[in-house]
Amino acid sequence: MSTSPTPAFTATPVSFTEAELDRITYNADGLVGAIVQDATDGAVLMFAWMNAESLRRTLETGRTWFWSRSRQEFWCKGETSGDRQYVRAVHYDCDGDALLVTVDQEGAGACHTGNRSCFFRAFGADS
Amino acid sequence: MSTSPTPAFTATPVSFTEAELDRITYNADGLVGAIVQDATDGAVLMFAWMNAESLRRTLETGRTWFWSRSRQEFWCKGETSGDRQYVRAVHYDCDGDALLVTVDQEGAGACHTGNRSCFFRAFGADS
Repeated sequence: MSTSPTPAFTATPVSFTEAELDRITYNADGLVGAIVQDATDGAVLMFAWMNAESLRRTLETGRTWFWSRSRQEFWCKGETSGDRQYVRAVHYDCDGDALLVTVDQEGAGACHTGNRSCFFRAFGADS
Repeated sequence: MSTSPTPAFTATPVSFTEAELDRITYNADGLVGAIVQDATDGAVLMFAWMNAESLRRTLETGRTWFWSRSRQEFWCKGETSGDRQYVRAVHYDCDGDALLVTVDQEGAGACHTGNRSCFFRAFGADS
């Protein structure tokens, strides 16, 4: 009998067309901003950058792939931390220059600090 | 008797400290990305850019102020369209390089297309 824990979520590819991909516009660095939102309760979890290849990987694998500007490499969210994101939908905005990625968030959350959301600090909290 | 419609929402300043403002980092163009989320149901409405002055105006006035990269000018959301945003909270992320602005959205919505959210198109819808 296996002792491996049963994964809570399953990676499911998101269908797309090349015409849809062509509607995305990238900045001078070849990047588009991606907002990641929790499918369960609508919490905004994080904001990161994708290039054309990481967007395609995200759609094809059903996991979130970003481009690290500091490390200049692809990263698949949660591969190190275990806090993986399973993509349920990807929307793009009216200008095609921002993405909204709806996910099931595995583990403790999206933030490297241990907080569920990276947006855990509010203006006025110090007042 | 006045025939003016009663405003649905009231602009309320958001308290902040200079130390909190100092935690925000801006890109090479002096901008930080701002995600706008509906306070009522958590819908992500739009993504736009703020500079230090538009962030300060947003906090001080309780209305959303952005920086238009194309027009190189400040814009207060809804001043032309009437679809104003009344700020209820502003969060910043762990890196201080993204903002989450929670608002009460007035009127039809946030998008110039007439949609409530700018993120009204999903990958796979064309399939």
